[in-house]
Amino acid sequence: MKATVYEGNKTFKVIDKEIEQPKTGEVQIKVAYVGVCGTDVHIYHGMMDKRVNIPETIGHEMSGVIEAVGEGVSGFSVGEKVVVRPLDDRKVKASDKGFNHICEELKFIGIDSPGAMQQYWNVPAFTLHKLKENTDLKLAALIEPLSVAAHDVRLSGLVKGETAVVLGGGPIGLLVAMVAKEAGAQVIISEVNPKRIEKAKSLGFDAVSPIDVDLVDYVSGKTEGRKADVVFEVAGVQPALDVMCEVAGIRGRIVMVAIHGVKKEVDLFKFFWKELKLIGARVYEKEDYEKAITLITANELPFEDMITDVQPLSNIQQVFENIDNNPDGLKVLMDCQA
Amino acid sequence: MKATVYEGNKTFKVIDKEIEQPKTGEVQIKVAYVGVCGTDVHIYHGMMDKRVNIPETIGHEMSGVIEAVGEGVSGFSVGEKVVVRPLDDRKVKASDKGFNHICEELKFIGIDSPGAMQQYWNVPAFTLHKLKENTDLKLAALIEPLSVAAHDVRLSGLVKGETAVVLGGGPIGLLVAMVAKEAGAQVIISEVNPKRIEKAKSLGFDAVSPIDVDLVDYVSGKTEGRKADVVFEVAGVQPALDVMCEVAGIRGRIVMVAIHGVKKEVDLFKFFWKELKLIGARVYEKEDYEKAITLITANELPFEDMITDVQPLSNIQQVFENIDNNPDGLKVLMDCQA
Ligand SMILES: NC(=O)c1ccc[n+]([C@@H]2O[C@H](COP(=O)([O-])OP(=O)(O)OC[C@H]3O[C@@H](n4cnc5c(N)ncnc54)[C@H](O)[C@@H]3O)[C@@H](O)[C@H]2O)c1
Ligand SMILES: NC(=O)c1ccc[n+]([C@@H]2O[C@H](COP(=O)([O-])OP(=O)(O)OC[C@H]3O[C@@H](n4cnc5c(N)ncnc54)[C@H](O)[C@@H]3O)[C@@H](O)[C@H]2O)c1
Ligand SMILES: [Zn+2]
Ligand SMILES: [Zn+2]
Repeated sequence: MKATVYEGNKTFKVIDKEIEQPKTGEVQIKVAYVGVCGTDVHIYHGMMDKRVNIPETIGHEMSGVIEAVGEGVSGFSVGEKVVVRPLDDRKVKASDKGFNHICEELKFIGIDSPGAMQQYWNVPAFTLHKLKENTDLKLAALIEPLSVAAHDVRLSGLVKGETAVVLGGGPIGLLVAMVAKEAGAQVIISEVNPKRIEKAKSLGFDAVSPIDVDLVDYVSGKTEGRKADVVFEVAGVQPALDVMCEVAGIRGRIVMVAIHGVKKEVDLFKFFWKELKLIGARVYEKEDYEKAITLITANELPFEDMITDVQPLSNIQQVFENIDNNPDGLKVLMDCQA
Repeated sequence: MKATVYEGNKTFKVIDKEIEQPKTGEVQIKVAYVGVCGTDVHIYHGMMDKRVNIPETIGHEMSGVIEAVGEGVSGFSVGEKVVVRPLDDRKVKASDKGFNHICEELKFIGIDSPGAMQQYWNVPAFTLHKLKENTDLKLAALIEPLSVAAHDVRLSGLVKGETAVVLGGGPIGLLVAMVAKEAGAQVIISEVNPKRIEKAKSLGFDAVSPIDVDLVDYVSGKTEGRKADVVFEVAGVQPALDVMCEVAGIRGRIVMVAIHGVKKEVDLFKFFWKELKLIGARVYEKEDYEKAITLITANELPFEDMITDVQPLSNIQQVFENIDNNPDGLKVLMDCQA
């Protein structure tokens, strides 16, 4: 079979490899599509070389079909369409208080152990979520990032009729915006990249640049002065941290989706003054996967438009190089069987 | 009657003044005791000269007895013991979403309008909470700061059996610790002032200095590695902001009680990684006042020991000078009728 490996130094190799049989408790998946995630690009840039066991096959946003079932696995059959929730929580402890998805000893499959950028992939059966037979496997490769969005919106406590401001209209921001809109919110996206603003608009969103308009005034105008009930910080930059405390109305909830590698300045006075809440959000729980699967199955949101390119797996090196050269694209999939 | 006025320039004057009759909707209170709050000290230091209408009578932590009732006031009688909830929310708007206690146009009585550091004080009747006849009026002067603590603990969602770490063992931190303990939490206080550590211990608390012990290790040791379920930031300094993200366990809630006048560095990565929550908390709502009144009435917590000095009102200048020279004291009351 064909597999890809990240070798360090911004280099992927495509190799030929024996197909391994699934071990006890594992299932073998014939991978259909793998999406490239910001984290994969981070790995490609060498930012995670200490964590990744180089040379390593990466990738965790995928869809596929069960090809073989290992010993001791029940409830799964060959031919079923599935996605993997890439969280290995087998080392969960009492001090994790039942929050298995962020347990202290969590291993992320596709970063800490081999990932999906190959033709056949063996994973523990407990990571699987089943799809309906008629599910589009291209769209299904969006389930992992869509689950991130579902988790973020769920933790925000958003209810129908509230106003949500999404800071950052990248792939995650747009998916958050879709889930928030589907939940009945008025959604406003703030984004600085003109191409991405256009994209957000074409997806039906109210999208503005905080460089061109005063975001706080804009949101105030759309809410009779109430400002945002919920803010999603999905940009990951200091200006977004500055504006999030301004654009949030009284008792506003701010969901921290972006990953800030270093300490950043925050206006804690505003947290006190308006009784704001900051809610850290990381990956997803089972119910978020189920929510994402329901949304993808219904296919009533513009998921199709999120996929800006599909390439054969063997083009992996070029795929990553292109992503670097084109910050306008959204989700790039690789077809693992092409 | 005797009244005091802040004149700017670290100066209070004691003056003789006509007693004014309460206007329509007002009640006249014969003030019993007034506590000195950190905010009053701030005013004395000139930090709020732009906001305070100098020369002004300040003070908002008080107890007293109704002396006269203005027109249009019902439900209150001369001789009743009361405290004032010093929030003037008469300009509340729809965009305040019903959070009247922090409404945009809130006026704080005793800062934005005349306060309690005088013998007779006229206030709008809607600010009053009644006390039981047998209530100790000295302890009752603690109801305002105790309501802050009750609010903080309520917003934290603390439940019995959880572990709460209180950063800062000043007057507010100690009251938070008392309310949290009363709610059934294991409480650990972190404080740097040795005298205040001793005080906290004498009040029955587990109190440590983060300079002498590694606070995270200490709390881990007391919780089988779970660390804090709730952290109260009541110190107001960068080291407390640094440690709050470390000492909070998975999905820990951090209540921001301290007022940070400038932007500060926060480890947002930890918010993401452990799904922490930051909860801004400001003053109190009606139910927090009722909770504080219940606690003061029951008098089962070491409130008595919080009062480290009682001085006649006419000593006001010396009272503020002493507070500056002695950071070990906790709550200083002034007797307004002495
Ligand atoms: N919490 C989680 O579990 C989780 C999961 C996946 C991704 N993430 C994080 O979510 C963030 C977004 O991911 P992504 O893949 O969409 O990244 P991205 O970089 O594609 O998107 C960020 C967007 O923010 C925009 N932006 C930059 N400055 C801005 C500003 N001042 N105002 C508004 N927008 C601005 C950029 O133009 C870009 O479109 C990243 O920080 C990523 O690490 C978190
Ligand atoms: N949210 C509200 O509505 C509200 C109401 C009242 C007071 N406050 C704020 O609460 C805070 C506390 O009020 P207070 O009157 O108790 O003030 P305080 O200054 O008496 O208490 C702060 C305590 O923190 C201690 N401290 C300093 N550095 C520390 C460190 N690194 N670790 C642990 N402790 C440390 C100090 O020694 C001091 O005892 C202030 O910031 C005040 O403005 C907020
Ligand atoms: Zn991802
Ligand atoms: Zn006060």
